[in-house]
Amino acid sequence: MYDTAIVGGGPAGVSAAINAKLLGLNFIWFGSGETSQKVSRAELIKNYPGLPDVRGEELAAALKNHVASMDISLTEKVITGIYDTGGKFSLLAGTEDFEARSVILCIGVQTVKPIEGEERFLGRGVSYCATCDGMLYKGKNIAVLTYDKKYERETEYLCGLAANATVMPFYKGYSMPSAARVVLKRPLRFEGDERVRRVVFDDGSLETDGVFVLKNAISPSALMHGLTVEDGHIRTDRAMRTDIEGVFAAGDCTGRPYQYAKSVGEGNVAAHSAAEYLSEKRRT
Amino acid sequence: MYDTAIVGGGPAGVSAAINAKLLGLNFIWFGSGETSQKVSRAELIKNYPGLPDVRGEELAAALKNHVASMDISLTEKVITGIYDTGGKFSLLAGTEDFEARSVILCIGVQTVKPIEGEERFLGRGVSYCATCDGMLYKGKNIAVLTYDKKYERETEYLCGLAANATVMPFYKGYSMPSAARVVLKRPLRFEGDERVRRVVFDDGSLETDGVFVLKNAISPSALMHGLTVEDGHIRTDRAMRTDIEGVFAAGDCTGRPYQYAKSVGEGNVAAHSAAEYLSEKRRT
Repeated sequence: MYDTAIVGGGPAGVSAAINAKLLGLNFIWFGSGETSQKVSRAELIKNYPGLPDVRGEELAAALKNHVASMDISLTEKVITGIYDTGGKFSLLAGTEDFEARSVILCIGVQTVKPIEGEERFLGRGVSYCATCDGMLYKGKNIAVLTYDKKYERETEYLCGLAANATVMPFYKGYSMPSAARVVLKRPLRFEGDERVRRVVFDDGSLETDGVFVLKNAISPSALMHGLTVEDGHIRTDRAMRTDIEGVFAAGDCTGRPYQYAKSVGEGNVAAHSAAEYLSEKRRT
Repeated sequence: MYDTAIVGGGPAGVSAAINAKLLGLNFIWFGSGETSQKVSRAELIKNYPGLPDVRGEELAAALKNHVASMDISLTEKVITGIYDTGGKFSLLAGTEDFEARSVILCIGVQTVKPIEGEERFLGRGVSYCATCDGMLYKGKNIAVLTYDKKYERETEYLCGLAANATVMPFYKGYSMPSAARVVLKRPLRFEGDERVRRVVFDDGSLETDGVFVLKNAISPSALMHGLTVEDGHIRTDRAMRTDIEGVFAAGDCTGRPYQYAKSVGEGNVAAHSAAEYLSEKRRT
């Protein structure tokens, strides 16, 4: 059982992890391999105080170097569900799960609106994680919606497993395996009964056994039940406490402005608040 | 008339100034010469993301370099009072005053408790600014409470003007002009009628015409009437808005944890909120 689980590898997650380490917490930190993809892609950042005119890749490297210098390691897993199990939390990564006394959500913000039905069928045919759920669809028909070039390896993996794979890439310069049928349309909605059954377009539909949605940020309400989400952002107070006791949030997922300085500040505060929460709980 | 006035030269002020510049605001930035004295003195900072194991003076230099690279200049004046003049604000620096449509307070936190009577007699014999009010006490009797070595030049200036100066230095390694009578006691309170008249100790008192209190942070309630102050901190919402419309706050003055990352994050948010406030006001 960890003291805290930090979910997300962007600047807020980096700052939360640095402070969790300094505060002596026993923590696990989840994120994708690239410490901060959104940062790396930024051309020039002019308002990260202390690093004037820093290129995105330089800032990403500086953050990566900072955590490495403190012997902090990132657990490269995608958390697809978090459950409050009464005073502690269970974090699901595919078939594995991890337990923690507190959670710090640094999950970024969805830049794309979820497809109608996406959240309703999550875990019932809709999956956010190719490596977690891919095997369930071996020899079946799947649809893959992919929002980023970095998911091409996972897309290839899914296409290799499925009998038929229809891939909808929503980014420029995609390169797809020959086995995939590429469709360049955005679905209107997902339909089904107890499970997802079809992907509906404006001019027809596609029968399917499962849908993979590969994107960089999962909506907070899909990730964890009970969070108050306003305008797509997790509501927090000034101490970065969410409406669930023991759960904190930091960075873009808490609202605008979407700024690196804001994210590192909130990550710092969230780690301090988690430490305070844990020490109060230990005393009672 | 400025769009915004930023008060305070620490990390929150630096971040607010950088963002005010990028947001195209016409602003003035007040602070003491040293961009961030508290930062400079920090031995080793381990949790400013992107700058691992940075020495305080290195971070201070990096912040100074950042603002210099953007042609942002600091106005070296001490703001001793801010007044809401109806939709705009008047900022007092000694006998000068400056007008702005919005204010961002980055005034740090008082580490010393005010002396009883200090705030009551402020502007009535008690002054926070030697260069502003010194001339008023030429040939008179004054008391000088000083909390930092950096005020020794101002203390010397006051001792040169006054007929009699009693100096109470509350820091180690002080060096005082020979004209000064040094007293190593902390007063219990200031007493007087419509003006301050005496400094009271536990074993006697000292008659005086004026008291100078030279310290790094002025209490928010002394600086500006109408702010909600809780536990010595200015109350703000998540957008760094105070309870006074058009007034924002950032950094240590808004509460714990006292952390550089938190300060730069809040300075960033405060500047964005001020810009939004100004643009909404322009539209109506």
